[in-house]
Amino acid sequence: MSLPEGYTVRRLQESDFKRGVLDVLTALTTVGDLSELQFNNIVTKWDCLTLMNGKPIYNPVVIINDQDQVVATGMIFIEEKLIHTGGLVGHIEDIAVRNDQQGKKLGKFLIEELKTIGQKAGVYKIILDCDPKNEGFYEKCGFKNAGIEMQYRL
Amino acid sequence: MSLPEGYTVRRLQESDFKRGVLDVLTALTTVGDLSELQFNNIVTKWDCLTLMNGKPIYNPVVIINDQDQVVATGMIFIEEKLIHTGGLVGHIEDIAVRNDQQGKKLGKFLIEELKTIGQKAGVYKIILDCDPKNEGFYEKCGFKNAGIEMQYRL
Repeated sequence: MSLPEGYTVRRLQESDFKRGVLDVLTALTTVGDLSELQFNNIVTKWDCLTLMNGKPIYNPVVIINDQDQVVATGMIFIEEKLIHTGGLVGHIEDIAVRNDQQGKKLGKFLIEELKTIGQKAGVYKIILDCDPKNEGFYEKCGFKNAGIEMQYRL
Repeated sequence: MSLPEGYTVRRLQESDFKRGVLDVLTALTTVGDLSELQFNNIVTKWDCLTLMNGKPIYNPVVIINDQDQVVATGMIFIEEKLIHTGGLVGHIEDIAVRNDQQGKKLGKFLIEELKTIGQKAGVYKIILDCDPKNEGFYEKCGFKNAGIEMQYRL
């Protein structure tokens, strides 16, 4: 599959603060009042952390439109385990598509991109948690229902 | 709540390879043929990675019995996000209790220990994925059903 003309996909970078990545995330949940400095600190931290195989632990991805704005974002971070002979598991988190960009299959494209990143890093599985109403979407992306998410709020 | 007499809880260390931590994990899933060197590399890596607040990202915990053997283990690793003003989320993973140690509430104790670690690290929520049959156990630990887990196998 491919992006609409003029759209590109790449790793998140510090300058995406100005391209509105936090506005895109507000479609998903509370973002809060994150300053550009705090944003840059988090992105720098993400860029520094690597797996034993040298690949990044945090893989934040953005889709940029033909106006140089962020219109979608998603993350796969990779966990190193003892089980499965020191296996790697990819966790997909914080998928958001700007409300005015629906119908362009950006979400599906993003998931495929994150799956490819996970595969190249050497994960044996990728997991994500979602609302049951999104099960059909993730099934189309090749995922299967594997259980329930339990949550404890502080 | 407290552990049975002679039992202790602490962070996993390299010498727990000899105390049988991998045997305990086989109660949960495939462990594979992980050498002591590979084990030490993973544990060292886990010990090196810290959050921006200085707390560890990976928090592997073991319960040791009065025979100096590992009888239960669990992990909380902590993810740094952009959302929730750069919020932290704890992920509980790979909870295992040795089959001959059932009925001592070691699982419940372990979850409480991991919740405390998450709280001290400053997480705003803790999540875990499980089989629906374990929902009642995690409800007793203060968790609520928050959605479904989707999985993609490579």
